[in-house]
Amino acid sequence: MKTNIPAQTCDEDCPVRQASEIVGHKWTTLVVRDLMSGKKRYSELQRSISGISPRMLAARLKELERAGVVTRTVFPTIPPTTEYELTHLGRKLEKLIHALAEFGVALQRRR
Amino acid sequence: MKTNIPAQTCDEDCPVRQASEIVGHKWTTLVVRDLMSGKKRYSELQRSISGISPRMLAARLKELERAGVVTRTVFPTIPPTTEYELTHLGRKLEKLIHALAEFGVALQRRR
Repeated sequence: MKTNIPAQTCDEDCPVRQASEIVGHKWTTLVVRDLMSGKKRYSELQRSISGISPRMLAARLKELERAGVVTRTVFPTIPPTTEYELTHLGRKLEKLIHALAEFGVALQRRR
Repeated sequence: MKTNIPAQTCDEDCPVRQASEIVGHKWTTLVVRDLMSGKKRYSELQRSISGISPRMLAARLKELERAGVVTRTVFPTIPPTTEYELTHLGRKLEKLIHALAEFGVALQRRR
């Protein structure tokens, strides 16, 4: 199913705008990409997304949690372990990540 | 064709990262969305993307031009008119915009 993109003003009700408010951030898409292969600990995300600062990672995860895209589970280990997982809504971002990957490949071919 | 997303580190060569460097910005996706329905003048973009500041619009367009996603044509009218159009590469972002629209609709249904 293709969602119709009307050739009209992109106001506050525009779905593309509302989606972009949540995932329109470079580091956010990288966090979602990483969680697509399954739940991850905070430390695993930190390691696999090279160059992300702990502060940036925490901020992006908090935003995704607030938006209902990611759940956070804290395990009472010593020290505590925190695991992040995509929600049902979050898994709907798969197409977006694939579209980004495809565009990235097109960019690389051009160079 | 689905681009394979490997369950590995997202380093500098990761296509999702390279794509996100260009389109991983809320206002950038809105500019691309607007240009999907055809070329537009600067003033038309300014009007249709409600809330964007002239400075932000100019910065996003310059980035997209540099990335080869958008072409800029200046017409010698008085005052000069500037038109922006997606390139062949830029039109490859259609899937991404559709994926954003679909996710935006899922977000709206949730509320």
